[in-house]
Amino acid sequence: MGKGRLEAFSDGVIAIIITIMVLELKTPHGSTLDALIPLLPVFLSYLLSFVYVGVYWNNHHNLVHAVNKVTGGALWGNLHLLFWLSLIPFVTAWVGENHFASVPLACYGFILCMCSIAYLILANCLAADNEALKLALGKDRKGKLSTLLYASGMALSFVQPLIGFAVYVVVAMIWFIPDRRFEGRS
Amino acid sequence: MGKGRLEAFSDGVIAIIITIMVLELKTPHGSTLDALIPLLPVFLSYLLSFVYVGVYWNNHHNLVHAVNKVTGGALWGNLHLLFWLSLIPFVTAWVGENHFASVPLACYGFILCMCSIAYLILANCLAADNEALKLALGKDRKGKLSTLLYASGMALSFVQPLIGFAVYVVVAMIWFIPDRRFEGRS
Amino acid sequence: MGKGRLEAFSDGVIAIIITIMVLELKTPHGSTLDALIPLLPVFLSYLLSFVYVGVYWNNHHNLVHAVNKVTGGALWGNLHLLFWLSLIPFVTAWVGENHFASVPLACYGFILCMCSIAYLILANCLAADNEALKLALGKDRKGKLSTLLYASGMALSFVQPLIGFAVYVVVAMIWFIPDRRFEGRS
Amino acid sequence: MGKGRLEAFSDGVIAIIITIMVLELKTPHGSTLDALIPLLPVFLSYLLSFVYVGVYWNNHHNLVHAVNKVTGGALWGNLHLLFWLSLIPFVTAWVGENHFASVPLACYGFILCMCSIAYLILANCLAADNEALKLALGKDRKGKLSTLLYASGMALSFVQPLIGFAVYVVVAMIWFIPDRRFEGRS
Repeated sequence: MGKGRLEAFSDGVIAIIITIMVLELKTPHGSTLDALIPLLPVFLSYLLSFVYVGVYWNNHHNLVHAVNKVTGGALWGNLHLLFWLSLIPFVTAWVGENHFASVPLACYGFILCMCSIAYLILANCLAADNEALKLALGKDRKGKLSTLLYASGMALSFVQPLIGFAVYVVVAMIWFIPDRRFEGRS
Repeated sequence: MGKGRLEAFSDGVIAIIITIMVLELKTPHGSTLDALIPLLPVFLSYLLSFVYVGVYWNNHHNLVHAVNKVTGGALWGNLHLLFWLSLIPFVTAWVGENHFASVPLACYGFILCMCSIAYLILANCLAADNEALKLALGKDRKGKLSTLLYASGMALSFVQPLIGFAVYVVVAMIWFIPDRRFEGRS
Repeated sequence: MGKGRLEAFSDGVIAIIITIMVLELKTPHGSTLDALIPLLPVFLSYLLSFVYVGVYWNNHHNLVHAVNKVTGGALWGNLHLLFWLSLIPFVTAWVGENHFASVPLACYGFILCMCSIAYLILANCLAADNEALKLALGKDRKGKLSTLLYASGMALSFVQPLIGFAVYVVVAMIWFIPDRRFEGRS
Repeated sequence: MGKGRLEAFSDGVIAIIITIMVLELKTPHGSTLDALIPLLPVFLSYLLSFVYVGVYWNNHHNLVHAVNKVTGGALWGNLHLLFWLSLIPFVTAWVGENHFASVPLACYGFILCMCSIAYLILANCLAADNEALKLALGKDRKGKLSTLLYASGMALSFVQPLIGFAVYVVVAMIWFIPDRRFEGRS
């Protein structure tokens, strides 16, 4: 089965996810700079989520680039990942509108955690018939580390929300650095 | 006529349909976990519709993959299918906001039923010039069975809404299992 | 200049235009069939606009399919067409929410008229370097007839709105019949 | 690394950005032509932003067309550009709803300025491994001139908003004229 449409469909869904989040930046009531202040937490959560969705698009690009064909199972693994990614705009809005409260931040971490697990499942699904990819993924320490960090971020959100948020920022920065495992290959 | 743009356009429309449904998950008023409880029926109907739209994308992928060129009639058959699919977000929101009431659930089944008929028309349209596809589709028992099940789901929604919903879940699960008729071919 | 991205971008924009119109079908307040009645004019205007946008996508597909490369001018001719098409959801919503009142219907016709002129400009732009396309377009009676009919529809909307609406339905049906000038070529 | 998906993803995001702006044209309350008058500033800001996003799509098309492969850094440079472009609908709505007030217009200029800087970074990123592109970009006087003009527009918005707006219109017109540096090459 060709991978062209899987890429096209995923690009479409991820492009919509990354763009509809900006709809949460509601037009301010007023024409002064002060009117932008209440939007700051919404903007910060948008920025973080934009980076996350961008990271996922980048990694998805590298992952699918490394295989030649996809099985029926991988199509569903891909839809499973897109499902969790599609919930990012929802938790982003919730975090932004509640000024980084504990429960929304923990839920944000939960969705990121589910995304990382869904990505892991998809990667394993694609690597099943692909020795080179299996090798490239290796022990996937980065993936496992981030799943762990998301879980800590969730717990720390209840201690002090900003620490939870800081953990999510750190994970985003870890992923921002391009994945060398694929760089060499592609 | 090439099929590239038919695939690209359908991917775009289906990607938007599957993603705008998440906009119905309105940001909760409050920052506690309790604030998520009223969203549960909306979330469940989103989950079911996500699976359905995913199934249609998968099947559409397999169907168009099996043909080499499309006629003008097939372009319209495709738009007809996209029209009914585009109404899924509307009925999904109606079902979710009314906590699975009878009439919305019956309408949900009606739209699914129309989608399955539109898919059948498109499949026949594409199979008209394609012997291999005609053979692969065969008697299309799975397609006819689901059309029948949607109709029963509509009727059962008036007896007990949850039974109607259960029928739709069952049909989704039937389709979730990849279509072996195409698996072998592609 | 390759035409791949012009097709991809146009497919994306047209896919979004055709899909966001369904967002006007607001979730009804109530769970009875009666709750759907106020949505009937919104639904009818959605249906007509869906057919129109579908017709434009079909014709755009045929038109761009007939050329091998596009000039910088054609890129802007294409954006010009997409601009007028992007206003269709706006007038569709206005017509639907005002139950086919005169002014909204006349504006609907005006936007359709501008779309048809923009399409004509794009077609001429593409045909400038393409003898075969110039021949296929010919005198473009169908295009000129519809521009004329849109203008009459606008005028008739002030006499009796439903006659104006009927004219738009007739033009949509004229275009629904595939364009034989391209059928033979492709 | 292939550039196909970078193009597809960017097309998707830009297509959504250019289309969701039309959602700000809210359905008027009333069915007379007068009901359209309050929408005029919203429409004008939509028109200007449509041209800007169209210009960016055109330039992005030409820029990526000129390279054969993209590095991991260029993927992020591209996402950085898309981030600033994604804020155009927000400032467009703010300008439109406040009838071209000073602060929203200055913010509009700020976002355009950041877009032009992000485009410059992406262009340099792509030109790093590409001698022909480096030559084609040259000293990029047009790019630097517009960044300067955006800054003047921001300052002039506080003197007289309409002058600020006029500056942005002028820059859009400068770019509307196709970029000859690429025309020759492609």
